[in-house]
Amino acid sequence: MTLHKELKREAYEANLEIPKQALALYTFGNVSAFDARQGVFAIKPSGMPYDEMTADDMVVVDLDSRVVEGSLRPSSDTKTHAVLYRAFEGIGGVCHTHSVHAVAWAQARRAIPIYGTTHADHLTVAVPVTEVISDEAVARDYEEETGHQIVRRMQGISPQEVEMIVVSCHGPFTWGKNAMKSVYNARVLEELAQMAYLTQSIDPLARELPPAVIRKHYERKHGAGAYYGQAR
Amino acid sequence: MTLHKELKREAYEANLEIPKQALALYTFGNVSAFDARQGVFAIKPSGMPYDEMTADDMVVVDLDSRVVEGSLRPSSDTKTHAVLYRAFEGIGGVCHTHSVHAVAWAQARRAIPIYGTTHADHLTVAVPVTEVISDEAVARDYEEETGHQIVRRMQGISPQEVEMIVVSCHGPFTWGKNAMKSVYNARVLEELAQMAYLTQSIDPLARELPPAVIRKHYERKHGAGAYYGQAR
Amino acid sequence: MTLHKELKREAYEANLEIPKQALALYTFGNVSAFDARQGVFAIKPSGMPYDEMTADDMVVVDLDSRVVEGSLRPSSDTKTHAVLYRAFEGIGGVCHTHSVHAVAWAQARRAIPIYGTTHADHLTVAVPVTEVISDEAVARDYEEETGHQIVRRMQGISPQEVEMIVVSCHGPFTWGKNAMKSVYNARVLEELAQMAYLTQSIDPLARELPPAVIRKHYERKHGAGAYYGQAR
Amino acid sequence: MTLHKELKREAYEANLEIPKQALALYTFGNVSAFDARQGVFAIKPSGMPYDEMTADDMVVVDLDSRVVEGSLRPSSDTKTHAVLYRAFEGIGGVCHTHSVHAVAWAQARRAIPIYGTTHADHLTVAVPVTEVISDEAVARDYEEETGHQIVRRMQGISPQEVEMIVVSCHGPFTWGKNAMKSVYNARVLEELAQMAYLTQSIDPLARELPPAVIRKHYERKHGAGAYYGQAR
Repeated sequence: MTLHKELKREAYEANLEIPKQALALYTFGNVSAFDARQGVFAIKPSGMPYDEMTADDMVVVDLDSRVVEGSLRPSSDTKTHAVLYRAFEGIGGVCHTHSVHAVAWAQARRAIPIYGTTHADHLTVAVPVTEVISDEAVARDYEEETGHQIVRRMQGISPQEVEMIVVSCHGPFTWGKNAMKSVYNARVLEELAQMAYLTQSIDPLARELPPAVIRKHYERKHGAGAYYGQAR
Repeated sequence: MTLHKELKREAYEANLEIPKQALALYTFGNVSAFDARQGVFAIKPSGMPYDEMTADDMVVVDLDSRVVEGSLRPSSDTKTHAVLYRAFEGIGGVCHTHSVHAVAWAQARRAIPIYGTTHADHLTVAVPVTEVISDEAVARDYEEETGHQIVRRMQGISPQEVEMIVVSCHGPFTWGKNAMKSVYNARVLEELAQMAYLTQSIDPLARELPPAVIRKHYERKHGAGAYYGQAR
Repeated sequence: MTLHKELKREAYEANLEIPKQALALYTFGNVSAFDARQGVFAIKPSGMPYDEMTADDMVVVDLDSRVVEGSLRPSSDTKTHAVLYRAFEGIGGVCHTHSVHAVAWAQARRAIPIYGTTHADHLTVAVPVTEVISDEAVARDYEEETGHQIVRRMQGISPQEVEMIVVSCHGPFTWGKNAMKSVYNARVLEELAQMAYLTQSIDPLARELPPAVIRKHYERKHGAGAYYGQAR
Repeated sequence: MTLHKELKREAYEANLEIPKQALALYTFGNVSAFDARQGVFAIKPSGMPYDEMTADDMVVVDLDSRVVEGSLRPSSDTKTHAVLYRAFEGIGGVCHTHSVHAVAWAQARRAIPIYGTTHADHLTVAVPVTEVISDEAVARDYEEETGHQIVRRMQGISPQEVEMIVVSCHGPFTWGKNAMKSVYNARVLEELAQMAYLTQSIDPLARELPPAVIRKHYERKHGAGAYYGQAR
């Protein structure tokens, strides 16, 4: 019997979006869904193909990454997820993919410039990029330290306003109010990464969007007087 | 009971072409269908996923963007559509997408050069690009002013001969004799944008098509003695 | 009653490969199938969407491009096809697409270098590119002259050994022993064009394949002692 | 009656992955499955379309490439496979594709730099590239010599740790513990090739991944204390 049926189903369905949105190959990538009240999250089992797993295969762990339900080994990136849940109050899902354009910016170790309104519809700054992880941090606790790299880079930035980052040399991590929203952000990030790539190829000196347009696009969707979408 | 059943169905079916032709993600993009006799147009509801909406969800508004039928909030770009219907006599549909190559040219703030006959089959000049919108215009009425930017850039150009534009830092707007034709133009624009991108990557000094070939291709499809397509 | 049922079916099925292989949008592109004994070919009707046409809609014309069977107007590129059938002995099909990478090379007005064995499996030289058509030729008879441009560029080259060309500023034309083979060549050309594009992006000074490898790959597939494929 | 039913089925199913993963067009590419005990392998018949062949069409050959079962001619690359089975102890499958990004690196005659963790999850060095084959080797025995080129380039490298290579001017060859794993490696190689291409386009001076991260990623998946995937 499961104590976390709904949480596991939420994680499962969000994970299935990764192959559906072509955000990673084979077993790559992982999504988790967080239950803040209980302090646990459900995450993809490590190295399992998306089309073979079931909702019941999701592994439930606590914020110290100890398995509390499930017989499989959780994603090798579990500790990174745990760090984000501990640090970013109010988030309910974390997603990690290897989508190609976002990975390319990560491998080039560059923030993704805010060139247009598609970007400003989602965040008001360049998509941040972490520092390259140090040899010491790798030796200490690689996945935990990857989380700390992200949190450090997000200092002074609201994780509600910026729900995506690229980890240098690695790839994208995104989050959101729930698991599905974190995958939505991963898909949007891949699109922004591709658009920025193409823009810079057309004009290596392309300039960022004027601040007034950034603010306008973000506010009409997320501000106090937002008028994008339906009243909720 | 609806007074605009046919108009809403036309808008609905044209909107469904956006995901089908892969011109935008999730809820991005919007198409409208115009009834010139009644001075109203039907448009996609704001922020609604394409696969969840029905024909009946389309919102009918007048040329001042006031809702005349429908319970949902119309697309946040509604005022831009209204400006185009007021300015461009004879058009029956407007489409806005975030297709990646067209957006890249918009973000690079460049017109799309007319490099080949695929382009000349549809228009005789580079795809125009608007000025970057001013901070004042953003503050005044952003979506209305986006429409004015387009109309200003189109001065001296026939909206029947040039049915597409890229709005600087934003993305493509297209129009046509009806809603479906405006989406057709959006798909063609994305193809022209990709072809021009690849051409410029192969040769940064690529030259535009000779005027005689431009004229020939356009005329055989759209001129008085057109012989492309079937007699109508 | 039709005198050319089989020929029309051959043309029809080959035309359907164009959208299936994603070689052109909407109504773009056209394929024809040639009956050398009767001196006629069946070709796609002009401007007709691929998913609306039937085998019976194919138009049969003679080598002067006069319609001998069918009630629709033949492709606007019919005269170009006719020139190729008159000039290239032994071919049985011609295909014209607007596939994006092949068009990009055409728009850059460059031959596609023979960088690798995928290319040498099909031809032993760079994919030729025509001259840009002159204003006089455009005025005289555009489609006929496009055929002459191709034939002129192919002088001294065997149309059995080189079954593909890019027409400057326009796009690819391919041919083969039958209609389906001409579309096969169009798909292969698009692949070679993409591979060459990527190669040149990685190394703008990339060198062509050594002659011994070119000859080996071509001969093992097409030479007297060919050992690729099954005995026929 | 077949003596190698299972082996042929393994080869057949692995070959079907090539079109499914979009790793080659039409009849291009080939996979083989090796039975080390009997010293034979089953391979795709030469020049046969993937959707027309059956498991029974697979050709079984010995390590001298002599047909021991089957009525069709084996892949023209059979001798290359045989060389690899003779040289790389413990492998059970070989795959050759013409996937576009891997071919582009091959045509540029460059190793694929190890820019990120997706790469380090699979191997700890740049994907090796062979020398360009000499005219003498082409004349001697082209396919056999292609195998020798690969083996020579792999000297001092474990074929268990590096299961992929690009053959200069030609394309990728991959291998693995069985046929399906060799195709998995071909798909991964294509992804790494695309990511490296994009990375280098964003920053032509992009640096390789720090050694500590390379080692960490490889070890967590393949080392003695591996914790990626499920216990086996």
